[in-house]
Amino acid sequence: MKLKRSSNLIVFLSDFGSDSLYPGIVSGVIHGIHPRVHIVDLTHSVPPFDVTLGAFFLYSSLPWFPEGSIFLSVVDPGVGGEREALIVVTKRYALVGPDNGIMYPAAARDGIVAAYKIFPGDYTFQTGCDTFHGRDIFAPVASHLSLGVAPEKIGERVEGMKQTDLPGQVWSGDTIEGTVLFADTFGNLVTSIESSTFRSFAGEKREFLINGLKAVAAGTFADVAGGMPALVPGSFERIEICINRGDASSKLGLHGGDRVEISRI
Amino acid sequence: MKLKRSSNLIVFLSDFGSDSLYPGIVSGVIHGIHPRVHIVDLTHSVPPFDVTLGAFFLYSSLPWFPEGSIFLSVVDPGVGGEREALIVVTKRYALVGPDNGIMYPAAARDGIVAAYKIFPGDYTFQTGCDTFHGRDIFAPVASHLSLGVAPEKIGERVEGMKQTDLPGQVWSGDTIEGTVLFADTFGNLVTSIESSTFRSFAGEKREFLINGLKAVAAGTFADVAGGMPALVPGSFERIEICINRGDASSKLGLHGGDRVEISRI
Amino acid sequence: MKLKRSSNLIVFLSDFGSDSLYPGIVSGVIHGIHPRVHIVDLTHSVPPFDVTLGAFFLYSSLPWFPEGSIFLSVVDPGVGGEREALIVVTKRYALVGPDNGIMYPAAARDGIVAAYKIFPGDYTFQTGCDTFHGRDIFAPVASHLSLGVAPEKIGERVEGMKQTDLPGQVWSGDTIEGTVLFADTFGNLVTSIESSTFRSFAGEKREFLINGLKAVAAGTFADVAGGMPALVPGSFERIEICINRGDASSKLGLHGGDRVEISRI
Repeated sequence: MKLKRSSNLIVFLSDFGSDSLYPGIVSGVIHGIHPRVHIVDLTHSVPPFDVTLGAFFLYSSLPWFPEGSIFLSVVDPGVGGEREALIVVTKRYALVGPDNGIMYPAAARDGIVAAYKIFPGDYTFQTGCDTFHGRDIFAPVASHLSLGVAPEKIGERVEGMKQTDLPGQVWSGDTIEGTVLFADTFGNLVTSIESSTFRSFAGEKREFLINGLKAVAAGTFADVAGGMPALVPGSFERIEICINRGDASSKLGLHGGDRVEISRI
Repeated sequence: MKLKRSSNLIVFLSDFGSDSLYPGIVSGVIHGIHPRVHIVDLTHSVPPFDVTLGAFFLYSSLPWFPEGSIFLSVVDPGVGGEREALIVVTKRYALVGPDNGIMYPAAARDGIVAAYKIFPGDYTFQTGCDTFHGRDIFAPVASHLSLGVAPEKIGERVEGMKQTDLPGQVWSGDTIEGTVLFADTFGNLVTSIESSTFRSFAGEKREFLINGLKAVAAGTFADVAGGMPALVPGSFERIEICINRGDASSKLGLHGGDRVEISRI
Repeated sequence: MKLKRSSNLIVFLSDFGSDSLYPGIVSGVIHGIHPRVHIVDLTHSVPPFDVTLGAFFLYSSLPWFPEGSIFLSVVDPGVGGEREALIVVTKRYALVGPDNGIMYPAAARDGIVAAYKIFPGDYTFQTGCDTFHGRDIFAPVASHLSLGVAPEKIGERVEGMKQTDLPGQVWSGDTIEGTVLFADTFGNLVTSIESSTFRSFAGEKREFLINGLKAVAAGTFADVAGGMPALVPGSFERIEICINRGDASSKLGLHGGDRVEISRI
């Protein structure tokens, strides 16, 4: 399995934190191997060790990047332990990271072509340190892939990889239930409820209860009068709970991980 | 009206937050259209919906960027509503964003040449989502401009655009009054009082009262003894209230949006 | 002394804060002088004015960047005061910043070849503002160095520069004492105790007391059962105090600057 050509773009996601030194060091490693590559820091603010939310971020972002992009995903609570390090080649991309499920939903969405277990060798650093595989293993591998090195030279073909299910929804009668995936900077609550499913659930109705509180369905934030919670088809193809120019998260007391129950009235 | 040549640089300002995933996705869109462009994240920490502070940031930063830079400004409380999407061509730059005033002070500073209302078409995405025009409209337009596409192909010439006034100062007798625009990381308070106006106001005087508290005028932070508030001509051509190696914001209890009254004594 | 060739990479470290506008403006200056250079934001979250931690970050990161990289380091509490502005040429790199010790440990590690005091002139901006040398002096100098301008044209050769000692360790009998340099996003405590020294101190022992609390030595986070503090050789060649999938900083009540005493039991 060969990537068709060298790539100009490495997309880097981690839970290192936006105040961290670690992403900068990883960028140094990448530029040392591939000086002209562009690096996009997708986000380093995945909550620590939150593989599921990291997987959702990757899944949601992937299609917005050009064909040939290499995704470097380092949310890695098991670093130095038993979990494998993987390259996953998909139809249009390659992904590099720990085999803990973070890459699965994104890779499956694009179409998995082959997976490779990375072995220590010419394309990784042997530092004697086992706490920073982002720097020592994943970044060198992603950089070499971006230079056009074949995955077979870096790893060994494997069948199967760890899978993670993204949170979904349960529709039962007049109620649909899901999870708050995260609250964004504005306090908009991105839920796990798919916009297309909600559309079927809602039908012609425009008024709902969210955990017992009145809300309206709307096309976008600006359509809703001040203060009223709105159900909006968001940019991730998921329903978002918003308050026009307000902070829905603090006003409704809802945060990442909370359950939401939406009822037709 | 044609931009003279393709641009190497897109400068991106938003209120998405430094922990957000959204700027990374926008960068993916940009690289997909113009793979070799450089992106500078000017800041994504404009307070949510604060068009005026976003306008000041843009106004203050613009002249430090090379001719031909494309500015992508996404502080957009009215996304999906009535407000237009604009391209503004100035003498040396092009700006893309919502027509809510955020671009006006910066564009007027450089000299407005023409404005164009963006229409949906070949240079924007039709996603059916109306909450993320940064990704679906502004980023594709900025990227195509950076490739050298003429603004006439992307939008329709319009006369006039929404204007925002930056906060200024009122000088009356022995007192000059202005606004705290924001407190920086160090707690330095950047005010709306122009350094040149303050120089006239101050004349030979070196001692002042800030909201009743004693302060001295100084050339830079290091000139002032520990603990004493200083009035310093800052890097944005505005007066800053500082405490040498201290946090003026927390010590004086002043924050973005507060009024400041400076009196000669 | 000439840098051998132009450089593709400027590495930028400051205490401006991750929410700041200032790094973006500095990037504009850099791109205006050298449009095709890549900029890595190493971190802008050095605590305000913390020259020692900035020096440690620079020292620890330097070797991970490619030969020829230019390091721009702006932690500068004395801006506008008496301190000089320096270029330091080392065996493989060049460093630009204030002469307050921030560059010394990193430069000495790589091998100092020559230092130059920057004088105002063709390679700096004369803005009449004395509060933002990152924008007006250090960035233009770094950019010109990256274009291949010889340091002699920008500054005057000097002997000696301000030195900073990185925090170390004191080993006395059954106890080794050091400092917490910082807590990372995960709450891992990076100490000043060198991994190699600790290895000699520990010998065959695996159990220790950290400030009186039981801990074990381990190869990596994943080796330690939940809740037990671990002493791990970290990615900076320093001992880190960690709790597997937990936050050692909050659980042990230890933060940057605190003393740690590790005893053999």
